[in-house]
Amino acid sequence: MSNSFTSAVFETETMDVPGGTETILRGGRHLFPLLPEAFGGVRRIGVIGWGPQARAQSRNLRDSLAGTGIRVSVGLRPGSASAADARAHGFTEQDGTLGDWLDVVAESDLVILLIADAALAAHHEEIFAALRPGATIGLSHGFLLGHLRATGGTFPDGHGVIAVCPKGMGDSVRRLYEQGAEVNGAGINSSFAVHADPDGRAVDRALAWSVALGSPYTFQTSLEREYMSDIVGERAILLGAVHGLVEALYGHYRLEGDDPVTAYERSCENITGPIARTISADGLRAVRERLDPDGRDTFDRAYHAAYGPARDLVAEIYDEVADGTELRSVILAERRLASRPMSGIGGSPMWAAGDAVRARRGERTLPVDPFTAGMFVATMMAQVDEFAERGHPWSEIVNESVIEAVDSLLPYMHARDVAYMVDNCSRTARLGARRWGPRFQAAYEQLAFPAKPAGQEVNGFTDHPVHEALAAAARLRPSVDIHVA
Amino acid sequence: MSNSFTSAVFETETMDVPGGTETILRGGRHLFPLLPEAFGGVRRIGVIGWGPQARAQSRNLRDSLAGTGIRVSVGLRPGSASAADARAHGFTEQDGTLGDWLDVVAESDLVILLIADAALAAHHEEIFAALRPGATIGLSHGFLLGHLRATGGTFPDGHGVIAVCPKGMGDSVRRLYEQGAEVNGAGINSSFAVHADPDGRAVDRALAWSVALGSPYTFQTSLEREYMSDIVGERAILLGAVHGLVEALYGHYRLEGDDPVTAYERSCENITGPIARTISADGLRAVRERLDPDGRDTFDRAYHAAYGPARDLVAEIYDEVADGTELRSVILAERRLASRPMSGIGGSPMWAAGDAVRARRGERTLPVDPFTAGMFVATMMAQVDEFAERGHPWSEIVNESVIEAVDSLLPYMHARDVAYMVDNCSRTARLGARRWGPRFQAAYEQLAFPAKPAGQEVNGFTDHPVHEALAAAARLRPSVDIHVA
Repeated sequence: MSNSFTSAVFETETMDVPGGTETILRGGRHLFPLLPEAFGGVRRIGVIGWGPQARAQSRNLRDSLAGTGIRVSVGLRPGSASAADARAHGFTEQDGTLGDWLDVVAESDLVILLIADAALAAHHEEIFAALRPGATIGLSHGFLLGHLRATGGTFPDGHGVIAVCPKGMGDSVRRLYEQGAEVNGAGINSSFAVHADPDGRAVDRALAWSVALGSPYTFQTSLEREYMSDIVGERAILLGAVHGLVEALYGHYRLEGDDPVTAYERSCENITGPIARTISADGLRAVRERLDPDGRDTFDRAYHAAYGPARDLVAEIYDEVADGTELRSVILAERRLASRPMSGIGGSPMWAAGDAVRARRGERTLPVDPFTAGMFVATMMAQVDEFAERGHPWSEIVNESVIEAVDSLLPYMHARDVAYMVDNCSRTARLGARRWGPRFQAAYEQLAFPAKPAGQEVNGFTDHPVHEALAAAARLRPSVDIHVA
Repeated sequence: MSNSFTSAVFETETMDVPGGTETILRGGRHLFPLLPEAFGGVRRIGVIGWGPQARAQSRNLRDSLAGTGIRVSVGLRPGSASAADARAHGFTEQDGTLGDWLDVVAESDLVILLIADAALAAHHEEIFAALRPGATIGLSHGFLLGHLRATGGTFPDGHGVIAVCPKGMGDSVRRLYEQGAEVNGAGINSSFAVHADPDGRAVDRALAWSVALGSPYTFQTSLEREYMSDIVGERAILLGAVHGLVEALYGHYRLEGDDPVTAYERSCENITGPIARTISADGLRAVRERLDPDGRDTFDRAYHAAYGPARDLVAEIYDEVADGTELRSVILAERRLASRPMSGIGGSPMWAAGDAVRARRGERTLPVDPFTAGMFVATMMAQVDEFAERGHPWSEIVNESVIEAVDSLLPYMHARDVAYMVDNCSRTARLGARRWGPRFQAAYEQLAFPAKPAGQEVNGFTDHPVHEALAAAARLRPSVDIHVA
């Protein structure tokens, strides 16, 4: 794919990335007046579902489109337990912005499908059948494409199929959008993809949707690449790997003699706190550069020890997702859920120390732990390199491997904890974290911790092209407060 | 399936199992004179490969058939590094008992395919093409059936397809056979399956093969059920679960304050030593009964805490193997091996204590640790119950879940260690243990250890039908020395 596109409505920009350029659209509230033209005849937008993404996107869209005459409605399954919360957020039957999902589908020009993956797998045919002629199908990740391929299905002819995929959880999509009222352009970056474009308006409709969500910048991908990076990323550095890593590190520090609070602070708290904040504010390289010489040596040893095992696992995950094996396992797991509910992941000893750690936060500034930092950054770089080798655009690589982690998920984990975080993601993500988190834990315990590589300047890390791509992405968004209360 | 069969040559017996009976054949050296008749025209047996099973089976067959005129030859790939070892064990080009694999295939009436799964997947078509008319294909597990189904292939018409599947590793198949010279009937139990039977002689040929291997008793299954129980079992209690359990228990005891040697003795050493020996000699119930009241209470709590998480995982593994997902992942992993060699699993801290533990063995009799025992027996019972629910015959259930563990694999792990054991199994098993061991470890750490169920007589355990099935199986074999030097 070319990673270049043109818009009839918005002024795009060219972003320098390693080895070339990518066309992107910078967002901001000053673009809201262009939305009606860009949406190209869309008068009614139906958001189907009320999960975290639907809750955020429906409100952002409504707020951004206020006064334009484009109405945003929410469609729910009959008897949905979410109706009361949707009403509490101003979507009501009385004014026609809350209704039965198939009714909302039938009356909308753009139908944004944000129901759970399992519901999408079970009900997409009914939904397709209810579409009005020429209506555009909107997705926020590629799951449905993967499912259709696995089951031999197709999208219906005559309908545009577009995706706008915020690189952050729903809570962040809303929270950072609200900051946009004071800091123009604050928000969560999004990718967009055009999968079918019967009337030639798909690119602008997708860009309009993304601008209305508050995306600081929007980059192009394909539904296929979005699917791969999304499903792999949540199994690796976004959720699965970080869970496996903090479990392994906690046990490692405890066996080294640390008390529970110290071990928690050196592992989980360190990653969700100072390491995430450093990367968010100043990039990956800053984590290493700000250590003293001994710390840098420890970082380098840890980085060398963790990179290989982590890369092997990311490659394995990528193969399984690309092959369809991972999606088959999700479908099998969904079938078991009726008789075997999903188990918790928050029972291991480390989480009992969380409250005490959070209570100590005001007392001092926690320094970056060099060993933890080396392990974590190596795992992040393993995903970056695997995505690069598989041909993903750089915007997708840095957003799905670095920015989504440090600006959305890790701050949320810092406020709650990892177990809470995992269980507030999609079921596909929760199942994936349960499958792969333990694999990462075992890889750190069996391979990375026992490795004794010579300390040395980390080959390839300080000069890695990712730093250029990350800096370019950082220049496209204003500084925001990622703190989660 | 009926679990009953008839033989034109051997006298079968009826074994009482929960809910009914199964037809079985009791083995022993007194049956060797019947082998030529039972083999029904087979004059040349070709064993293809020189892995652990081939090494054991080719020697057992040759020794059992000495003086009958039925010749056992070994076929190896051109340039095979195993040729020297085969010669050292008396298979030579000079006397025509060692040759190129396709030549040996072409001259044999029964071709026993014991090459690695990946080689079987890659080369089965060449091998099928080289078969002489009417030759019988012999397998020792169901992998090839799973592979053919996954790839749309079939067994060639006009050839019998039989399986004889020893319920133990190759080393045990040979070692216990050698004990049979003094203790008639010593050996490793085997299942048999008839998948295609064009001349009506398949049952007796399979029984002859099994008797010649030294199987104390032989029971019937289907290639499909054999495949399921074999692949699931090695991912669960035979390898994957036991590895995950000892890793989890070691860390648990260390964090409770045990020194490394004590933690190793309470975890790994306990399972491979006193727990395995107790089950082998006196059955599952004896493990609990011999504890004092406090120990029984601890056992019951551990059993209750571990059973549910372990059962969930065995069910998940069963689903993935039945669906073909697991085999797809093995194929994907095989493709990665060229660029990403399989990593070790023996690097975690516990294995460093192994030598010190083994050096202490003479000093005292290690008692059964009730917590470890409850966790281990619960995991074993989870597999027993899952196999029963999925309709496996009881002989298969107890052999694949209990007897193979305590009489073959755990004694081997006791002599070496778990990592060495895993890496002396098939690559399919090694890959499976790497995939699922960490899942079990996480389940114990996150779910079983933190659970605080009330201590109580274990529901269903003491009255479970497995004890009857296990006792019936025990009566069919002489007492053997399972010690591995």
